[in-house]
Parts: sequence; structure tokens; C-alpha cells
Amino acid sequence: MGMSGGELIEYRPLSEEYAYTFGGRAAVRRVRPGDLVSLYTEDCFGGVVRDVTDLPSAVCNFPYLNPVTGPFHVEGAEPGDTLALHFVEIAPARDWAVTTTLPHFGALTGTHTTATLQEPLEERVWKYEVDAAAGTVRYRASRSDFTVELPLDPMHGTVGVAPAAGEAKLTITPDAHGGNMDTPELRAGVTVYLGVNVDGALFAIGDGHCRQGEGEVTGAAVEAAMNTVVAVDLIKGVGTPWPRLESDGHLMSTGSARPLEDAFRISQHDLVTWTAGLTGLDTLDAYQLVAQAGQAPVGNVVDTNYTMVAKVAKEYLGGPVAYDGVHERLRALGRRYLSGR
Amino acid sequence: MGMSGGELIEYRPLSEEYAYTFGGRAAVRRVRPGDLVSLYTEDCFGGVVRDVTDLPSAVCNFPYLNPVTGPFHVEGAEPGDTLALHFVEIAPARDWAVTTTLPHFGALTGTHTTATLQEPLEERVWKYEVDAAAGTVRYRASRSDFTVELPLDPMHGTVGVAPAAGEAKLTITPDAHGGNMDTPELRAGVTVYLGVNVDGALFAIGDGHCRQGEGEVTGAAVEAAMNTVVAVDLIKGVGTPWPRLESDGHLMSTGSARPLEDAFRISQHDLVTWTAGLTGLDTLDAYQLVAQAGQAPVGNVVDTNYTMVAKVAKEYLGGPVAYDGVHERLRALGRRYLSGR
Amino acid sequence: MGMSGGELIEYRPLSEEYAYTFGGRAAVRRVRPGDLVSLYTEDCFGGVVRDVTDLPSAVCNFPYLNPVTGPFHVEGAEPGDTLALHFVEIAPARDWAVTTTLPHFGALTGTHTTATLQEPLEERVWKYEVDAAAGTVRYRASRSDFTVELPLDPMHGTVGVAPAAGEAKLTITPDAHGGNMDTPELRAGVTVYLGVNVDGALFAIGDGHCRQGEGEVTGAAVEAAMNTVVAVDLIKGVGTPWPRLESDGHLMSTGSARPLEDAFRISQHDLVTWTAGLTGLDTLDAYQLVAQAGQAPVGNVVDTNYTMVAKVAKEYLGGPVAYDGVHERLRALGRRYLSGR
Amino acid sequence: MGMSGGELIEYRPLSEEYAYTFGGRAAVRRVRPGDLVSLYTEDCFGGVVRDVTDLPSAVCNFPYLNPVTGPFHVEGAEPGDTLALHFVEIAPARDWAVTTTLPHFGALTGTHTTATLQEPLEERVWKYEVDAAAGTVRYRASRSDFTVELPLDPMHGTVGVAPAAGEAKLTITPDAHGGNMDTPELRAGVTVYLGVNVDGALFAIGDGHCRQGEGEVTGAAVEAAMNTVVAVDLIKGVGTPWPRLESDGHLMSTGSARPLEDAFRISQHDLVTWTAGLTGLDTLDAYQLVAQAGQAPVGNVVDTNYTMVAKVAKEYLGGPVAYDGVHERLRALGRRYLSGR
Repeated sequence: MGMSGGELIEYRPLSEEYAYTFGGRAAVRRVRPGDLVSLYTEDCFGGVVRDVTDLPSAVCNFPYLNPVTGPFHVEGAEPGDTLALHFVEIAPARDWAVTTTLPHFGALTGTHTTATLQEPLEERVWKYEVDAAAGTVRYRASRSDFTVELPLDPMHGTVGVAPAAGEAKLTITPDAHGGNMDTPELRAGVTVYLGVNVDGALFAIGDGHCRQGEGEVTGAAVEAAMNTVVAVDLIKGVGTPWPRLESDGHLMSTGSARPLEDAFRISQHDLVTWTAGLTGLDTLDAYQLVAQAGQAPVGNVVDTNYTMVAKVAKEYLGGPVAYDGVHERLRALGRRYLSGR
Repeated sequence: MGMSGGELIEYRPLSEEYAYTFGGRAAVRRVRPGDLVSLYTEDCFGGVVRDVTDLPSAVCNFPYLNPVTGPFHVEGAEPGDTLALHFVEIAPARDWAVTTTLPHFGALTGTHTTATLQEPLEERVWKYEVDAAAGTVRYRASRSDFTVELPLDPMHGTVGVAPAAGEAKLTITPDAHGGNMDTPELRAGVTVYLGVNVDGALFAIGDGHCRQGEGEVTGAAVEAAMNTVVAVDLIKGVGTPWPRLESDGHLMSTGSARPLEDAFRISQHDLVTWTAGLTGLDTLDAYQLVAQAGQAPVGNVVDTNYTMVAKVAKEYLGGPVAYDGVHERLRALGRRYLSGR
Repeated sequence: MGMSGGELIEYRPLSEEYAYTFGGRAAVRRVRPGDLVSLYTEDCFGGVVRDVTDLPSAVCNFPYLNPVTGPFHVEGAEPGDTLALHFVEIAPARDWAVTTTLPHFGALTGTHTTATLQEPLEERVWKYEVDAAAGTVRYRASRSDFTVELPLDPMHGTVGVAPAAGEAKLTITPDAHGGNMDTPELRAGVTVYLGVNVDGALFAIGDGHCRQGEGEVTGAAVEAAMNTVVAVDLIKGVGTPWPRLESDGHLMSTGSARPLEDAFRISQHDLVTWTAGLTGLDTLDAYQLVAQAGQAPVGNVVDTNYTMVAKVAKEYLGGPVAYDGVHERLRALGRRYLSGR
Repeated sequence: MGMSGGELIEYRPLSEEYAYTFGGRAAVRRVRPGDLVSLYTEDCFGGVVRDVTDLPSAVCNFPYLNPVTGPFHVEGAEPGDTLALHFVEIAPARDWAVTTTLPHFGALTGTHTTATLQEPLEERVWKYEVDAAAGTVRYRASRSDFTVELPLDPMHGTVGVAPAAGEAKLTITPDAHGGNMDTPELRAGVTVYLGVNVDGALFAIGDGHCRQGEGEVTGAAVEAAMNTVVAVDLIKGVGTPWPRLESDGHLMSTGSARPLEDAFRISQHDLVTWTAGLTGLDTLDAYQLVAQAGQAPVGNVVDTNYTMVAKVAKEYLGGPVAYDGVHERLRALGRRYLSGR
């Protein structure tokens, strides 16, 4: 198992082991490049919202939301390197999932920063049935008998490393270190690249979603505990300014900021400069190509920073190889793991 | 030809007939609900940027950019009605298209409003070869010999009606009246719904793109003159607060504003309230469903307002019928036209 | 009366003569540089909110709010010139003024663009007593007997010229043409500079406030009809990109945009480049000086664009003379007028 | 010395004792309510920019900028309390101060989040002469012989406490815990109120400015080391959601966020609800009064969050007593200290 004798490390946190910050926490395990890590993540509510009567304001312990599993110390990782985390599998751990409106959270309400004097929205919980075999989640309206099946499309809202310079950021915050980006693009089969800021990188993962609309407009997705397998690798001496994603067909850059146009600018700027480097195109030529060939899938427009993704098909770039082909290698590793178990 | 004896109206503007505002202009033609209008639109540069040496700052007459064809007076249209414009066909009129960077325009540069003291970006023109038969446009780098084919995906950046209360808005501005939304979702096969503000609605169309990336990050798409056919209809007594789009599979709401999160909020708010009305869902139930089932394709992040689209598959709503089925009727009319000529 | 045989022109509009747009309207009077214009402006509600029971949603005719007096054609004004309007006097026309909260307007509420699903704020009207002799307005709480006197500090929220290129903008919108900037800096003794976009400039004035807090956070100030006297002059061949203000002690640039930081950027950028030109300082030296010496009084954070002012004391610039000293000349003219009547 | 036997604690940090985060650091000293703390703060460059040839990019160790002195543990402080820090004296420690433009920092340039493809602005340093006796700082242009004296108006850009929930924030970031608010309102004679998030509060102070324009548009003020005296007190059981300031004449609330309108909203919302509580006014009545009586001095429009201040004269509120009169008591204590040394 693994790339070069890599191990399979299994880890299920005890309830007191969850982290609520990136940074400021000691590692729960040490892993090596080439290892596979099989881990369990709790949902963003810490698993205490279990039915439509469990209002978060009553059952959650604010601000201790969005627990992450980790951090994991990656041996050999140093500032200036890039950590590659390939998501081999993201599997819902239960046959239900929950979501909610929150009184001062979400895109269509005043919040603690978009401060208004209006009455808050009603806090309400919805519970979804998860049918992993059928590949669906079932929505049920709370005030009528309307119901519909939506495709199961598991993802992690939160993945990141420790920030630089002694910072510790709440796990609800997305930024250059990763964190709560809440992009549906972060699904199985995708490799995430994160710039390393501290020795060991100290990555952590959480906030599984059975599916999420673009923007996560209510502030919560179809929230679920997950059994997740990631393959770990390290690109030495190559930095990554903002989290990047690679799928079989696409390169993606993320940006997390406010206002939303700055998240867009960061993501597009990174994709332009990244692809210019990969293709040898002059910067304005890369800008031009991304402008006509690119997509801009929205991550979240609700968190403490908003997240945008800039995305381009590799075929429109002449099929460049990023990070010396680590995605293809981890993808193959993941397939071997899945077929071999 | 037409729904109920509707006519086919052909119109190619003389050079002095183009409009540069929505509002403040007399109609160039009168049309009736049920008519098909076959029209020609010039590109956003007025057709004067024809090669890579034609810098817009030298050959264009600022601010007279983005000419639109129209306005057309729709008989019977009154404030409070909704105009339906179904795009039957959008066909590039030439075998080339152009695009450019502009010194103070685009997402990755300071602009006249995001004012900076830095030197402007270089102004540069790219010319694309358009192969309508093959369904491609060819990108050629300006500083290397890299070249690639991208799919042809024609759309109109600009469609709108006259604003209310005597306003006249430059055609480069998107807002509640439509205008320069620059969303790739506005392609053939799609119906656009626009709230009528003045007698006759006074719609106009322009700014054809052979294709456009999401966000239109350089500020210009693959700009082209178009031969376009639209089917016109009117929904009496039903208002539409922001432009909406309907395709065979999806309902879409738009929002145009700054900052970008407000464009997102408008579009999501409209989709939530619109779908709540169509499905009978309580507002928070519709909010929940859109949050998990919806998409948020970016229009532009460069124009005087930014544009976001909120989009949901009809199947996730139980297949509701919007505006009494006008999309299906106009779609059928368009198909008859295309197969009959 | 006047600078060089200038006339005193008196104008009180008939109710049908008010304008609701800048642009798209014929002039109500012709004036010449050097003239004084004595005019009456109605309040932003058109004078129909006269007591606390007159809710705007009931008594106003939306969107016909914020009537302006004008436009006035200035003889000789051409695109590329700068119009100077010196406010000689702004005197409340009545002994009362009104203000209100509005359901979807103001900074501490969701609006039609910052769209939320919350219930709107209550619509409520407050009436202020105006004591011009004492120089006060009296606030009275609506739900208790708290009352307090605030200084009378009359200003005009709205002054502007016709935009370029056939645009017509609602009078509630501030932009490069002026409009509804809602800055308390626009009081008597101040000269406003506006770039001319069309022959005759076509300036108009409205939206008097007995006083206004910075930001106009509820969306309305202490709204009043005004008897106002302005001195008119023209600087030929000198453009002005955004409205500027000059008082005896200060130079000010305005910016109107969203998000608010763009309004700030525009105003600071203009002040830096303007003062660099006046002082001969290199651009970064002027940037440095404005950064340490400047003020940034907030105009409004509620209108369709937000307005910021960048302000610097002339003494910190070595006492430069702007626009060839027109402020001093108009100031003297205004003083002669006031002392001579 | 002190209120009730309070002590005078003197502290000058060793170079390795400076902190670069709020949170994540052990206290350097313990103090008690009633104590006076006399401390030294280094400038935002760590004192290594000493002349116009010392470019920060060459001499500073990014991101270790903006060192703060502390944190100080306040005995008895617990989450839910409010810490009162009264600034008795802020005295420049040297007869010079420095400031700079930075390549990707400031309001009139693209930044790492408002990402552009333009060339960065030139990095340049200015040195000011500080004449404490005369009460001036002298600006000298770098590219001409223009020079001018500006009033000395010392302030601290940075003051804050440890955030909640294990967060550690870079000292360059302003937020609900305080931090790098960069408001000129924070001068001697002012009391700052900070909500306590952790046992001991753990306050720290830094980033002295000899003066600063509103907005700090270049990204740096007239940066100086300071000898500062603060009086410390604690209001038990009373929370404070965002930093507040009190001077002899005014109450002020701050908000730090992006976009800038959210900083404005937070500050205004807090001032409205705070003053409603102090005066007994109904919320909308307080909103109304603040809207007409209030000011909105800009803090910074350059830091990782922007800062706005909402300010109202106590006389317009009927002279309410905030926090049980702690400002008046600390003000008296400060005056006794200054007159007694």
C-alpha cells in the first residue's frame, strides 16, 4: 500500500481530539509522503444536530463549530514546500445528514458584519436521507409534503494547513492556508495543493457535505460525517500561494477574501500566473486564454471570507503537467487502493 | 411563420441607427407578440477593431462602445408586463472575431473606480479565427506560437429594455432592465424574461460573443458581429423584478450590482422567491432547496455592475411551468422556423 | 450684481417643472457665467411628507423622489470645461423638516440590492422643528419624550450636471456627474466643480438637508425645502473627472461608487493627482502628503452609489490656487450679494 | 499612584519579547485594575527603517511587522467582562519618524487580495522630523524641495486583547478583538473598551503614529516608537462586542471588516444599540438620532480588515454615563499622574 512502501494510517478522533483552529494545535499523528490516511470527520455541528428539533443555537457550543480531524504532521514538510492531498474517497458515515438556517449567518440575511437592525431569520433544521447505494440524498420540505431526490456528491468543505507566523485561524475561515473554502469542486478524485507554512505542514480535514449548491447560500450544506481516504505527498522547494486543485481534466486556483470580487481576482490571478508558468505563455497571453476558456465556480458566499475557484480544462492549455505529475501518481495510487481493498 | 400569424421581421441597422443607451431612444421598428425578428448586431467595438494592430484606444470613439440593435417597440407592452425574448439562433456573421485588454478595464487591473496609481496594463488585441462549420474558434498567442481550438458557443452579452422613470443607461451597464449582463447562459435555445418599464418595452440586443469565459476577466470576450433570430412574446400583467432566463432544463435569475456579493444576493433572492411561487414551497423551504440544488454561474466581474446568475434544474423543483409555458411555445416556434427555412 | 455685469436670476419651479433625472431634460432657464441664481428646491419627498403620519410608501409616487430644480443651461459651457457653482446661501424655506426610515433603504437594513429574506424595518417618520434664528433643529423621539437640539447646518444632498453620451441618471444616484452625493461638506461658502459633459452643462440642484450625519445611515437626513443662492462660473478648457469642492480652507475630491472602498479610492486618487498638479509634487510625494495630512469625510453609505470625500487643508499644500482662483472670486461675489440685499 | 492603591508598572520589552499576534502568547507582565502601565512600543517596522535608503523589503523580516508590547495579563479579567484602557500619554520616543509606500500594500494599488497584473508601485521611504516641543512633524518631499509642518497628533494604531476560542491573529489585522484599527481617534485622553475573551484579557499595544491621515491611504502613517502610559480598569460582567472609544466629549464604536461598508455597518449598528441602551431610546429612535447627529471618521482602508468609527457627541444624547463612569475616573487618574510626576 502506498507509493514507495507508503503505509495506510487509520485515525478516528476521540471527541476531545477535534481541532477548531488551523494552527495552535499539536499534531495528532505523523505521516510520511506516500502514505494513505483513512480518517473520520464529524459534521460541522459536531454531530449534535440529529433531528429537526435540534436547533444549533440550543445544542451547539458556539463558536466551537466545524471540528476538523488532525492536524497531521507530514515528515519532511518545511515552509516553501507544497503539500499534495489527493482525495481518494469521501463516503458518508451515516444514512442521514442535516442542515439549517442560522439567525445571523448565510447570504440572504444580515450577519454580524453585514449588520442590520432587522429581525433575524427563523432558525430551522432540515434532515436529509442519504442513500449511498442509490447515490442520492432526499430533500423534504418542512412546511409542505414536497420531496425530491438530489444526486449525492460528497465533498469536504474544510481542508488546510497551519498558517505562518504563529497565526491560528478558526476552522470556519478560508484563507491562503485553505480552511473552510466550501467548494463543491473538492470531491473524490481531486488533488489539493497547499503551500506549507510550518514544519510538518499540519494539515487537517473536516466539514463533509453530501452535496452543496454553489455559494452555500443558506450558510450550511447537506452536512455529514465522512469516512475519507487521502493520499499524501510533498513537493519540495515549490511554493503555492493559494490553494489549488487538480482533477483529471482541470486545473483550479482558489481565492478567499471579501468582497467577493477580491476572491475572484485572487483565483483568476493565480490561475493566469500558474498556467503562464506551465505553458510558457506570456502573462497577457495566459490572461487572454483563461478569459475565454475559463470557468469560475463559486465556492461559498457566506463564510468569514468568500471563496471563488478559477478553473480551466487542461486540454485548452495543451495538456500541461503540473507539479511534476503528482496528481496522476496519486490518482493511480488511489485507484490501486480502492480496487485492492 | 410565427405563433398565431406572427411575422418574420428582418432588420439590419444602418451605421447611424445603433443605440448606445437603453432608454432615451425612439424605436427603430414595431413588432408584435408572436413575431420573429431576424437582426444583425455589430460587435462591441462597432466593427472597427479588425486586426491586432487596431488598438481600441486609437480606433474607437469612447464612450460610444457596445452598440445595440434596436430598440424595438412591442405592441401592447405596458409597465407591469413581462417581455419574453426567445433566442432562436445566434450565428457569427464573420469568420473572425477580436478581443483585447484595455488599459483601465478588466478584473485584474485597476480601473476608473478601483482607482490605483500603478501604470496601466498594456493594450493588446487578439484575433480569433471562427469556424462555424467545425464549431470552433482558434486562439493564437501573441508572443509565442501556442494555438488552441476552443468550442464555439455563441451568446449575446447585451439584451435589455428601456428603464423606468426616464432613465437612459449606457449599453455597457447591466442592471434590473437587463443590459450588458455578459453571461454565457444567454445562448440560443434560451428565453429571457424582462420586466417592462415603458410602453412598448423598447428592447435592444447587441454584444455578440463567439464564446466567453465565466467572469469575462479581461473585460472582453471573443467579440463578433452576429446574425440573430429572436421570437417575441408578452406576458400581460405579470412583472419580473430582475432579468430571468429559462432553458429547456433550467430556471435562472440574474442580479447585477457591486460588490459582487450583492449581485449574488439579488440573483439568489429572486430565484428563491420565484421558485417558492412556482412550487408552493414556503420561502425558507425554497431557500433550503436552492441552497443545495442550485448553481451560481458567474456572468461578468468587469462591467459597471457585476452580474451573477442563480440557476436550478427544473427537475429538482418537480418540473414547474413558468410564465404559463411561454418558453416551450417559443422553443417550438423557433424549431419550426429553423427547420422550415 | 454679479462679477462682470452678472445678473440675479430668480426661479421657483412649478410643480410640473421638477426633474427626476440628470440628463434627458430640457433646460428651464439659461444663465451666464457670473450670474447669481436664486432658486427654490423642494425636499426629497416632494413636500408631501408633512407630518409623522405621512408614510412615504403611502404619500410618495415612487420612483419619483428627490426632485431637483433645473436644469439650467450655462451659456458657453462645452464638454471639457468645468462648471463652478458657489453656494452663497442655503436657507430652510419652512420651520419644519422631516425624515424617515424606509423599508428597504438605509445602511442598517437589507435593500433591493443587498437582498435578504428578513422582514423589513418599520417605516416611521420624524418631524424636526427648525429654528433658523437660533440655528438649531429639534429632534423628538417617537417612542419617548426625549428631545434634543442639534445645530442647523444646511446643505444640498444633490447637485450635478447632465452625464455624457445620452445617459440620464435618476437624481437619487451620485456618480461622476455629481448627483445625490449627500455630503455635509456641500454647505454655503463652498464652491463645487463639475466637469461639463454636454453643451450648456445643464446643472440642477435639490435635496436640501437642515443637517445630516456622516453616512446618512437611515437613508434620509433632516429633509427640507430650501431657498438657495448660487454663483455660476465657467472654467474653459479645463476638465474635472469627479466633482470637487473648495472651501476657504480646504480642497476636496469626491468619489461615488460601490463598494465603499472604491468611492474612497476614487476620491483619494483624484485628490492626489489634483494636488500633485497644483503643487508640482511628484505623484508619490503627493500621495505621501495626502496620506498624512488628509481627511476622509463620509458622504453617504445608502444611495445607489456610496460617496466619500477626500479633503486636505490648503495650508498643508503651501496654499495653492485652484482653478485660477475662481473660488475666491465667487466667494467675494457672494459676500457682496449677502451684504447688499 | 493609581485609583485605589494602583501601581505604576514600567515595562520596556527586550527585542525578543515583542509579539506579532494577539493570542497564542504568554503574558509578559501581570497588572491589576487600577494600575498605570508605562510602556515602550517600537514602530511598525521594528525600528529598522531609519533612513530613506532603508527599504522595508530589504531590511524587514516579513511577515514579522507591527510588533506589539505585551500581552499583559489583567488580574480578574474573565470572558464576558470589558477591559478599559485609558491612554494617559503617548509621547514619541525619538526625534524622527518614518513612513513608506509598499509594493502591494495601500489603498491606491493592487494588493495580494485586490490582485492585479500591473507593475507594483515604487517602494519609497520618507523620514519626518519630530519636534515634540513645537508639536509638529515636518514632511519633506523626496523629489522636490517642498516641505511643510503638520501638527503632531500621537496615536496608537494597534491595541487589542487575545481573541476567543484559541485564535491567534497577526497584529496587522483589526477585528472584534481590536488589533490594528489605525484610527486617529485613539489618542491620549481617550479610553478604549475591549470585550474580554480569555482569562486575563491579555492586552497589547503597538504601532505608534505621530499622526495619520484618515484612511492611512498609503498603508503607513508617520510611524514612530512611543513612550506610552495607560491606566487599566475592568468592568465585570459587562460585555463589549466591538472595540469602543470614549473621549471627554464623544462616544465611539468601531467596526473592522471588508468591504468597507460592512465596517461602517458594524460601527453604526454598535453605536445605535449602545446609545439606545444608555439613553432608553427605542432602537429606531436611536438610529434616527445617530443618523442626524453622528460622525463617521474613517480609520484605515488598507489593512486586512478596514476600520470605521461611528461617533456621537455625548451632549446630543443628554450626557449619558457609559460603563458606570470609568472614563471620567481614569481621566482623573491620568491627570493626577501627569501633574504629579
